[in-house]
Amino acid sequence: MRNLRRELFAEFIGTALLLCAVIGSGIMAERLSAGNTGVALLANTLATVFILYVLIEVLGPVSGAHFNPVVSVVLAVAGAGEGRARRTALFIAAQLAGAIAGAALANAMFDLSLLHASSKMRASPGQWLAEAVAAAGLIVVVLRAPRGRAAALVASYIGAAYWFTASTSFANPAAVLGRMMSDTFAGIAPASAAAFVAAQFAGGAVGMAVSRMLGPPDAQAG
Amino acid sequence: MRNLRRELFAEFIGTALLLCAVIGSGIMAERLSAGNTGVALLANTLATVFILYVLIEVLGPVSGAHFNPVVSVVLAVAGAGEGRARRTALFIAAQLAGAIAGAALANAMFDLSLLHASSKMRASPGQWLAEAVAAAGLIVVVLRAPRGRAAALVASYIGAAYWFTASTSFANPAAVLGRMMSDTFAGIAPASAAAFVAAQFAGGAVGMAVSRMLGPPDAQAG
Amino acid sequence: MRNLRRELFAEFIGTALLLCAVIGSGIMAERLSAGNTGVALLANTLATVFILYVLIEVLGPVSGAHFNPVVSVVLAVAGAGEGRARRTALFIAAQLAGAIAGAALANAMFDLSLLHASSKMRASPGQWLAEAVAAAGLIVVVLRAPRGRAAALVASYIGAAYWFTASTSFANPAAVLGRMMSDTFAGIAPASAAAFVAAQFAGGAVGMAVSRMLGPPDAQAG
Amino acid sequence: MRNLRRELFAEFIGTALLLCAVIGSGIMAERLSAGNTGVALLANTLATVFILYVLIEVLGPVSGAHFNPVVSVVLAVAGAGEGRARRTALFIAAQLAGAIAGAALANAMFDLSLLHASSKMRASPGQWLAEAVAAAGLIVVVLRAPRGRAAALVASYIGAAYWFTASTSFANPAAVLGRMMSDTFAGIAPASAAAFVAAQFAGGAVGMAVSRMLGPPDAQAG
Repeated sequence: MRNLRRELFAEFIGTALLLCAVIGSGIMAERLSAGNTGVALLANTLATVFILYVLIEVLGPVSGAHFNPVVSVVLAVAGAGEGRARRTALFIAAQLAGAIAGAALANAMFDLSLLHASSKMRASPGQWLAEAVAAAGLIVVVLRAPRGRAAALVASYIGAAYWFTASTSFANPAAVLGRMMSDTFAGIAPASAAAFVAAQFAGGAVGMAVSRMLGPPDAQAG
Repeated sequence: MRNLRRELFAEFIGTALLLCAVIGSGIMAERLSAGNTGVALLANTLATVFILYVLIEVLGPVSGAHFNPVVSVVLAVAGAGEGRARRTALFIAAQLAGAIAGAALANAMFDLSLLHASSKMRASPGQWLAEAVAAAGLIVVVLRAPRGRAAALVASYIGAAYWFTASTSFANPAAVLGRMMSDTFAGIAPASAAAFVAAQFAGGAVGMAVSRMLGPPDAQAG
Repeated sequence: MRNLRRELFAEFIGTALLLCAVIGSGIMAERLSAGNTGVALLANTLATVFILYVLIEVLGPVSGAHFNPVVSVVLAVAGAGEGRARRTALFIAAQLAGAIAGAALANAMFDLSLLHASSKMRASPGQWLAEAVAAAGLIVVVLRAPRGRAAALVASYIGAAYWFTASTSFANPAAVLGRMMSDTFAGIAPASAAAFVAAQFAGGAVGMAVSRMLGPPDAQAG
Repeated sequence: MRNLRRELFAEFIGTALLLCAVIGSGIMAERLSAGNTGVALLANTLATVFILYVLIEVLGPVSGAHFNPVVSVVLAVAGAGEGRARRTALFIAAQLAGAIAGAALANAMFDLSLLHASSKMRASPGQWLAEAVAAAGLIVVVLRAPRGRAAALVASYIGAAYWFTASTSFANPAAVLGRMMSDTFAGIAPASAAAFVAAQFAGGAVGMAVSRMLGPPDAQAG
């Protein structure tokens, strides 16, 4: 019981800091980069890679460091045993609450209204495909990362995906929720959210299938 | 048999994601960097370094993570035993198919026509020398990387070579094939391809010779 | 006795090089970046991340590599045993002396007057909140970093926090003292210093509380 | 005998690739960055950090990966035993020959005349102080890097020093020689060379003294 409480706290605080970093660095980057969005996305990428690496290393031993409903669902499906449904639901609740808290914290630090909606529309078949690709790749990395390297690999993967996917790779429904509260280049309008989340879960299923086709990770000759 | 199938799948999927990342980040970088090609190549470099590190760590245990015909040929020549010729040919086929698929995927995400030819000419003695240097260095790294550090070393090497070679370091015939399908600063016109590939194989031979002159890696005192 | 002398020397030299790097790269970045503060902060971030990683790895075995009064106080409070108060006071003295020396060294290299005051005001509730957040996160990382990864994690955390906190994350009273001596975008006016330091210690206390709620780090299942 | 030959070949090839990377990326960066020297130095920094990490990891097991006369002299002085003077002289000769070859290779790739002199004057007390600081720090890192982390630490240190020293941290007489052959922002006029080299050796002596004051590295409690 106490363990579950700590796990949920870790998921809450980790997702909050992740979204705080994504949105806060987005605001800072937009303000400093004098209209050069390339420079702004470079900064946003570095901040995200660094904080992901830190959060997964530091909080991984407590909760597994999911910070992402697609990851929690995939790991529950890939795993076995009872009580997983309830635990997964609680994890997702903690992640979504953390995302909202993190976005509000970023807005507070930059003297913006705590809760406001993004107006940045993101809706095109290319972007939906991009979210599916981003999530599929993330799940393959999560399911197959060699022991002790998950933090560096997940962080590096997201750092690449920010640039090679047309959507800058949200790949995380909790990130969608938090970014709905940021009217910057890192934001997403609420009207664009549902399709992104659907694409992410579809991508997660593809990632599971790809990982299965690659054989059991245990068979790996490290 | 099943092992070979998994190996080929890993080479296909890995080369596809590599080219998808190289080309996708090239498109994104060109769109965002407001004409500053320095910023664009920085972004392209980071995305390539990150995805190479991830792909080699995650798929290395399955297939060795070549993703590059020069690497497959060199390792076949450096190794021994029967059946290597057929295996190498299949690896190369998987890599080339993956490169085409990855380029098409990147184009699809960015709402471009799936298959189109690059118009970016790359033909000068300096560029051919650059491709030979890039491939030679890559082969030395592949043949001599200390155990467990190949992914970080190959990724870092390519990250440097993007900047210090006059050709931005393709160093990979599969990358040439994929980039022929991208009309961005990351592309290469089909007419420029054959000389690049020839230079890469020549560089691979130089790399093998240099590694031999350095003595057996086993003689290394950790 | 000799050990304490070496520890204090390590804290002095480490804090000096840290501040020299932060301020020196700030000056260089401002001079080279042609008014694009985004590019300047990217450079400042990279230099800080690199030097923090180096200093903690190299000097950690000598003194623990605090370089930061908040870290020294938190570790003294979290620890136990006698004589901690005097040792902590000496550590802080060495850090503050190092910060002044490092700032003067940076100014000397760039042909500026050794000792001068910054005119860069930093005073807003958002910035104070940012300093508390930055310090809280730093303390959680310091208290919970897995063995052998503290240097990479602290450096990465600060690299992210430079961008996601509205204050660019000083998170260190010694850094405040040194940066008071730099009239660049990395500086801070003396009038803004006291509130920053207060926020940093408050954040440190929050970080200790958060770490306690996450359970003992020993309970971590690697 | 054969060992020494391999060592000298490793020092030659390693210094050549180091200078080729430093100068080549300098040329590329200057051409692409549209007059923003901040972006150019960022690219030059990344390329240098990446190649240093690779070269030290890959060639370290063969020769120790000095690539720098100051490092070779310091290690000879810090060490003991006979025959060190001759070996050090041969190492330095290999490094200087490599630096010339690497600079010429970079110039060849970018279609410049192989051998030409830089016109970039670098002469001020601040720059000489900067070279001494840069070399002192490098020697402390070389003498005290924990086992297995020398490559990452030396590369990271130089990455920071490019920005925080007023001279962009040559810190290496072989680098001075090679960069005399590059008329870019990475070059140095022959008239400025002697003072740089003198400052580097003086800095090396300071670094040895600082390391001694920190106590024996063996005393470190890993």
